Amino acid sequence: MSREQRMKIDALLRQPVPAGPRTIEEIRAGFAALMAQMRVPSEIRTRATTLGGRPTVLVEPAAEARPGTILYFHGGGFVSGSPDTAMTLTANLVTRTGFRALSVDYRLAPEHPFPAGIHDAVDAYRALLDSGADAASIAFAGDSAGGGLTITTCLAARDAGLPLPAAIVAFSPGLDATRTGESMLTKADRDPIFTRASLDHTGGMYLAGQDPRQPLLSPAVLADLRGFPPILLQAGTNEMLLDDATRLAARAREAGVDVILDITAEVPHVFQSFAGSLDEADEALDRAALFLRQRLG
Amino acid sequence: MSREQRMKIDALLRQPVPAGPRTIEEIRAGFAALMAQMRVPSEIRTRATTLGGRPTVLVEPAAEARPGTILYFHGGGFVSGSPDTAMTLTANLVTRTGFRALSVDYRLAPEHPFPAGIHDAVDAYRALLDSGADAASIAFAGDSAGGGLTITTCLAARDAGLPLPAAIVAFSPGLDATRTGESMLTKADRDPIFTRASLDHTGGMYLAGQDPRQPLLSPAVLADLRGFPPILLQAGTNEMLLDDATRLAARAREAGVDVILDITAEVPHVFQSFAGSLDEADEALDRAALFLRQRLG
Repeated sequence: MSREQRMKIDALLRQPVPAGPRTIEEIRAGFAALMAQMRVPSEIRTRATTLGGRPTVLVEPAAEARPGTILYFHGGGFVSGSPDTAMTLTANLVTRTGFRALSVDYRLAPEHPFPAGIHDAVDAYRALLDSGADAASIAFAGDSAGGGLTITTCLAARDAGLPLPAAIVAFSPGLDATRTGESMLTKADRDPIFTRASLDHTGGMYLAGQDPRQPLLSPAVLADLRGFPPILLQAGTNEMLLDDATRLAARAREAGVDVILDITAEVPHVFQSFAGSLDEADEALDRAALFLRQRLG
Repeated sequence: MSREQRMKIDALLRQPVPAGPRTIEEIRAGFAALMAQMRVPSEIRTRATTLGGRPTVLVEPAAEARPGTILYFHGGGFVSGSPDTAMTLTANLVTRTGFRALSVDYRLAPEHPFPAGIHDAVDAYRALLDSGADAASIAFAGDSAGGGLTITTCLAARDAGLPLPAAIVAFSPGLDATRTGESMLTKADRDPIFTRASLDHTGGMYLAGQDPRQPLLSPAVLADLRGFPPILLQAGTNEMLLDDATRLAARAREAGVDVILDITAEVPHVFQSFAGSLDEADEALDRAALFLRQRLG
C-alpha cells in the first residue's frame, strides 16, 4: 500500500480508545464511531425490515438487482456492532455483485450470550428459506464475529436439517474461543486493534462461563465441515485472528470442501472496511464479489 | 461438478498408459497425446520466437492486448512437455486477461537435469527485462513442474539481483523434491495421475543424484520467500502434490507475502486444463485472471 494509504489507516485506528477495561456502552459507542468513518458506496438503497423476528436491513443495488441474496452478519465481538457498523462491507458486496443483502441485527452479549446470536442467525436463514428463497441462491457473508457466524450458522443449519447456502465469505473471522492459534502470540505486537486482554474481555461476555471447546464456539479447532459449500476466507497478516482463518481452511480442505484462503500482507483485521481508501481493500472485495457471482450465478 | 463433466475427465485420464517404467520417449509422447485433447481457445494468435536463447511461443489475444506480460512455464515433470502441451492454460490466461504470454521451452531432464530449467527460465526473464519490459508489468505463471518454476525462478532472480515480477500464479505446483508432504500419503489413493513410483521415476531424472534438500528443489520446505510478489496457488484435493501448495502458502504468509491458496475439492492435478469442459476449471481460471489483472493493472 502507498505511504498515504498507510497514514490514513493509522490515523483512523489511532482514534482515542480508553486503555483500561471499558463498559459495554463505551465499547459499543467507540466501535460505532470508528466504523462511521468508513466510506459507504452511494449506489445502494436500504430499508429496515425484519427476518426471523430480528430487525434486519435490506441493502439493494440502486440499479436492478441480480437474483441472489447475501445474508450478512456484522462484526463487533458479539457484544457490539449492528447492520449500520458493517454497512461499508455489506454495501460494497452489494454494489460489486449486484445481489441484494439482508444484514441481521442479531442479539448481543452480555445481555444475550452464546448461543443467542447463532440462534438468531439460523432463524433469519430459516425465514429467508421460508419466504421462498432457494438455498442455492443464498450466500452467508460476515466480518470478524460475524465471519464466525457464517461458519457456525452453517453448522447449526446443517444440524437442524436445513439445506445449506451456496457459498460462505468470511472477512477476518473469529473462529476459536479457545484462543489457541499461534497468531495469538506471533501477531500480538503487530495487531493494531486487538490485545489478548481486549479479546478476553469481550469474549468473556459472549462465553458467559460456558466451555469454549464446542464446535459452535471454536469451529477452527473442532468443527466437522463435511458437506459445507465453497468458502472464501480473507484475513491480514497483522492480526491475532489470522490463524483462526488458516486453521479453518485446513479443516475445510480435509473435509473435501472448496476453500480459498486469501491472505493480504501487512494489513489489519477487517481491512476491507477501508474500501475506497485502501487499494488492498477494494481488490479483496473484488475477489470476494467474483467468488460470490461464481457461486450464486 | 456434474456427472457428465466427471465422466469426461475420467475418460481422458483413463487413456492407456503403460503401467511399468516407461522410456523418456514414451513419457513425452504420452503426455503430448493427453494434452493435445484439451481445448485451446481460438481467440489467440501464436508466434514462435526466442527468449534468452530458448525457443519460446508468444501468445497474444486476437483483439488488442492490454499492457503486461505473462511469462509462462509449462508442466511435465521437468522431463516432458512444451509450450504446446500447456497451450490450453496459457491461452486461457491470455484470453481471460488480455495480456500477452511468452511460454518458454526450457531444457528438460534427463538430458539437462536440475538446475538447467531454472537457468533457462531466469535467462528468459532477464531477456524480457532487457527488452525494456518493466518488472511491474510481468507475472510468472505455470503449472505442475512449471508451477514450481514460477517460485524457483523468482528465488533465483532475487538472488541474481534482478527486480522481481509483480505476481506469481501457480497451478498445482511441484515444490518439494523431498516428497515430505502429508498429501503424498493421504492422497495417494485419490490421485488419478501420479503414484509415488511415477514421481520418483521422473523426479530422479531431474535430480540426477543431487541433494533434494535445496531451496531451488524444495521451496515448499526450504525457501525464504521474503520480498516475493503476491502469489496465487491453485490445487485440487485429489492430488498428491496438494501439500506442496499448502506448505508454500504457509511459508509465504510467514514471510509477509500476499498469498491466495485456492483449493478446489475433488478435482485432479492441473484441473484447469479441462477449461471448456469442466466448470471448476473455467471458474478457477477466471479467478486467476482477476488476480493477474489486479497485479499488472
